[in-house]
Amino acid sequence: MKGFFISFEGPDGAGKSTVLKQILEQITPKLQMQYITVREPGGSKISESIRNIILDPENFEMDDRTEALLYAASRSQLMAEVVIPALKAGKLVISDRFVDSSLAYQGAGRNLGIKEVKQINDFATRGIEPDLTIFLDIQPEVGLKRIQKLRPDDEDRLEQEKLAFHKDVYKGYQIVNKDNPKRIKVIDASQNIGKVVSDCIKVIEENLPEIF
Amino acid sequence: MKGFFISFEGPDGAGKSTVLKQILEQITPKLQMQYITVREPGGSKISESIRNIILDPENFEMDDRTEALLYAASRSQLMAEVVIPALKAGKLVISDRFVDSSLAYQGAGRNLGIKEVKQINDFATRGIEPDLTIFLDIQPEVGLKRIQKLRPDDEDRLEQEKLAFHKDVYKGYQIVNKDNPKRIKVIDASQNIGKVVSDCIKVIEENLPEIF
Repeated sequence: MKGFFISFEGPDGAGKSTVLKQILEQITPKLQMQYITVREPGGSKISESIRNIILDPENFEMDDRTEALLYAASRSQLMAEVVIPALKAGKLVISDRFVDSSLAYQGAGRNLGIKEVKQINDFATRGIEPDLTIFLDIQPEVGLKRIQKLRPDDEDRLEQEKLAFHKDVYKGYQIVNKDNPKRIKVIDASQNIGKVVSDCIKVIEENLPEIF
Repeated sequence: MKGFFISFEGPDGAGKSTVLKQILEQITPKLQMQYITVREPGGSKISESIRNIILDPENFEMDDRTEALLYAASRSQLMAEVVIPALKAGKLVISDRFVDSSLAYQGAGRNLGIKEVKQINDFATRGIEPDLTIFLDIQPEVGLKRIQKLRPDDEDRLEQEKLAFHKDVYKGYQIVNKDNPKRIKVIDASQNIGKVVSDCIKVIEENLPEIF
């Protein structure tokens, strides 16, 4: 594989989408290679069909394990159709979430087990890992408050449930980050956005100088 | 779990559906418990949505691993919604195909590895196995000839491809059967249908006397 692969991770409310957009605006003029961005779940026709099943609010009876397997199936198709061909063609692939999200959200948050969820994802990804993962670090309480500001009509009971869930997700991320110190670089996402973006770019320049 | 679980397996052309129908006609009057039959993939609303993605002829770009993960996802939902509740309620569950089909078709036929496909299916089934599996044994050449009789307009090249694939599937089944001699009972499906049915019923009576 001649290309490079960067994933962005973080709890809800870390500001991932905004940060990613600003990073791309600043680094793309300097890139020495073509790049693509991918979103999960989705990114190909079949993956989008799978995404529709996962996100359909009518599917309230969705079992946690089914959900984890559907995420892995969507990811497998994205790998086969988009990510692997791009890496083989020498491109830079930038992914908004990847396997670590499944480990944190389904493995820890849904309590299915990080090791168990990793196994099904290793099957889906053929063991391909990002060259670099940037983890936007925000405490779950802070991240949720940011989201509540954007969606102030959420109910208290659900928010309570969400906080417990998101605390478990955060704990899951901590375990994953600790297990992968070389690949995953942690950025303090509680800083102002300009600083978060420049910290991320610095990490990319230090760890993947080949792409510039 | 108070109930019992029987699965039926076999290569295409083994006569599984017909045999299963006749067995049910003969044993249901004698059963001391309620029973349900399930089909794979499918059997619940979400599983049927997944089935539609798997079987949609438009999805020709479906990756083999995606297919295996979608089968496992459909199975996981069927377990959660149908099989586990029925077993907990003390019912007999009779399944037309189960995990062994994935091991043979995707693990061996699609060459993804029997062990690898078993891992994702153990995740889907929570490790629940049938109490008894009946394998309807037919050589792939004979099974395919039976199917060709039913669908004589199939093209030669595709039939050739199919034969190689089905030989691999058959080899996969042999490995699975050898690894599970207590659970899987092999019935010679090249006999006339009456004999196949009576052999199956005999095996059920011997191995699961509790259900009568």
